[in-house]
Amino acid sequence: MALVVQKYGGSSLENAERIKRVAERIVATKKAGNDVVVVCSAMGDTTDELLDLAQQVNPVPPEREMDMLLTAGERISNALVAMAIASLGAEAWSFTGSQAGVVTTSVHGNARIIDVTPSRVTEALEQGYIALVAGFQGVSQDTKDITTLGRGGSDTTAVAVAAALDADVCEIYSDVDGVYTADPRIVSNARKLDTIPYEEMLELAASGSKILHLRSVEYARRYGVPIRVRSSYSDQPGTTVAGSIEEIPVEQALITGVAHDRSEAKVTVTGVPDHAGAAARIFRTVANAEIDIDMVLQNISDTAGRTDITFTLSKANGPRAVSELEKIKSELGFSAVLYDDHVGKVSLVGAGMRSHPGVTATFCEALAEAGVNIEIINTSEIRISVLIRDTQVDDAVRAIHEAFELGGDEEAVVYAGSGR
Amino acid sequence: MALVVQKYGGSSLENAERIKRVAERIVATKKAGNDVVVVCSAMGDTTDELLDLAQQVNPVPPEREMDMLLTAGERISNALVAMAIASLGAEAWSFTGSQAGVVTTSVHGNARIIDVTPSRVTEALEQGYIALVAGFQGVSQDTKDITTLGRGGSDTTAVAVAAALDADVCEIYSDVDGVYTADPRIVSNARKLDTIPYEEMLELAASGSKILHLRSVEYARRYGVPIRVRSSYSDQPGTTVAGSIEEIPVEQALITGVAHDRSEAKVTVTGVPDHAGAAARIFRTVANAEIDIDMVLQNISDTAGRTDITFTLSKANGPRAVSELEKIKSELGFSAVLYDDHVGKVSLVGAGMRSHPGVTATFCEALAEAGVNIEIINTSEIRISVLIRDTQVDDAVRAIHEAFELGGDEEAVVYAGSGR
Repeated sequence: MALVVQKYGGSSLENAERIKRVAERIVATKKAGNDVVVVCSAMGDTTDELLDLAQQVNPVPPEREMDMLLTAGERISNALVAMAIASLGAEAWSFTGSQAGVVTTSVHGNARIIDVTPSRVTEALEQGYIALVAGFQGVSQDTKDITTLGRGGSDTTAVAVAAALDADVCEIYSDVDGVYTADPRIVSNARKLDTIPYEEMLELAASGSKILHLRSVEYARRYGVPIRVRSSYSDQPGTTVAGSIEEIPVEQALITGVAHDRSEAKVTVTGVPDHAGAAARIFRTVANAEIDIDMVLQNISDTAGRTDITFTLSKANGPRAVSELEKIKSELGFSAVLYDDHVGKVSLVGAGMRSHPGVTATFCEALAEAGVNIEIINTSEIRISVLIRDTQVDDAVRAIHEAFELGGDEEAVVYAGSGR
Repeated sequence: MALVVQKYGGSSLENAERIKRVAERIVATKKAGNDVVVVCSAMGDTTDELLDLAQQVNPVPPEREMDMLLTAGERISNALVAMAIASLGAEAWSFTGSQAGVVTTSVHGNARIIDVTPSRVTEALEQGYIALVAGFQGVSQDTKDITTLGRGGSDTTAVAVAAALDADVCEIYSDVDGVYTADPRIVSNARKLDTIPYEEMLELAASGSKILHLRSVEYARRYGVPIRVRSSYSDQPGTTVAGSIEEIPVEQALITGVAHDRSEAKVTVTGVPDHAGAAARIFRTVANAEIDIDMVLQNISDTAGRTDITFTLSKANGPRAVSELEKIKSELGFSAVLYDDHVGKVSLVGAGMRSHPGVTATFCEALAEAGVNIEIINTSEIRISVLIRDTQVDDAVRAIHEAFELGGDEEAVVYAGSGR
């Protein structure tokens, strides 16, 4: 008998009919002899509707109250799923994040989980109940206020609860049936992976893959929680995210998959006087605005002792970064700040590149043959990323996928939905 | 400086626009120098929408989960009102019933408040914040589960919080601007009362008046909380519910108002053998089905030693009472159970009837002149109620109102809405 944690996203819970289907799956899992804990996001459009209502009463709503408001969504979905489970003859209790012992920092809208003390959940399981835990939320350790966890919060809740309960697996359900070697909507012969180690999944998530959120994969890796990515529309086993690349024998290490990201933009500060501290001043200015940067490129200075500094960041932060840099233009004496949001990032991920020389060469050759120009290149031990024109992203993904023979024989099954 | 508790019902919070108006009133109250605590019901149709969703996933939803589901409604409205308050420059924190220290029994769907320990509310007030408390809910003392308080729960929450905080007044806002001598939609010259003592308000509430819920008035009376019934659509001072009839000098005691109730039905058990215990058996049977009864009439037995026993109850319980009584028919040996749901109850309330003989006579004469037949009559120290044909309710109300000269000179202002 295993302890299974299942997480269902908003699109799996869009209406009463979907909720009943999800309840059927949950009850079947319980009847198979498992203890079952379920984490539900808010139903389909609920969070957006609540955000809209909030905007109508206050264009800049206080964060504490936004968390009080938004958490109503998960309360509703978890209670409804518990009711649907009861209609099938099983017993279930729903709990808010607070009731389930999810303790967090005080940062409203982006709280981090400090600890999970799930005694009420354990008690429910001991009494034979299925326990539902509202995702995306917790209670602040300091202020006792209700908090929400930011992007991917429900995935994080599920993994954190699974870790605290020492669950055998954490199943993340959405409308995709696993992790693919590339986005099946771009690459028709993309292959579903049976399994992928944590570090590779982390790189894919950081490189644009929307299947799992970075924080939840990191949490799973730290606590050794196996994740299974599955579709709530089928019985396919999905992809298992578990194990470390360190456990993979060198000769078996592979190139795993290709990710792409259209959410970044490029900022170039031109004519930067080439003296110590100039680059630091630029990056500190951006950091002070609480903007994360991704790839960086600094050219060798020209004969006039000036250089260009380029970096990428999320498009959402672009305008703000530009305006902050404009403020220090005269102080630093650079020429201009350029902004380009027609870029895309394509990444190849795989533990195999550590032990196989020539991967970078093959990668660049494939892009060259496809007529794709590399603007910035950035690597880690198991990842190569390039910044290119956004219009060439699809071609680049296909070229790399082909060059590394990642495709399978079957045409990938693409479900309705955006891959979450 | 006073501590004011204000309660806003669902129709006052129907949409973003109404919410902003409510926020304006709250902030004005605060700016006038008061400490302000606000209790909000769920927005307009929210509770019904949630009930409907619940029905879709389970026709007989488990009560614990129903409470988890429904309480999302108050969470949403209170957070939105807090946001609207913030947009006007004041500061506000919303709290669930549980966070506000509303401790209850474990009866889901109809919990009773055991205690209110509002330390977080007090703390908020001390820091200059407006505190919002979700109505209609609390936390069970025994199980720590979230509970809802049943009918009129938000009124009860408001009064209970006012009592715990020793507030100077508890203002109940709806779409009516006070307590009237009769329903203004029936009696065009019904007069708004400036003030009414607790016991008379209790009688009115028990006799069909929907302005305030019985439980909240009883709570206010027990803890000496003055209630003010006001409209959220105007600045009228409303009606103050405070004081005891014992404080009214005999010569000033009045006849206060007329209430009517169309929600009752009549059950008659015919041909009951007239022996000790028969009536007891009938009433115990109904009581065991957890059905409350109101008026009772037992005739003198006929020459055959048989009698009819008649009682009234809420229509919602009628069919169930009938079927329970059918089960003991052969055991008791009565003839039949008759059911009549075309009845109405009309009541006259006033402390003055204690000291003015002839009130009952005037009452009955007024009805007779209006051609209204009395089927059952039932009195308390300060109330006379009669059961009549439901088609005659309006005539009876007008006749009694006229006979006791309760009307004012101005035409009553009738707002859209059903009086809640």
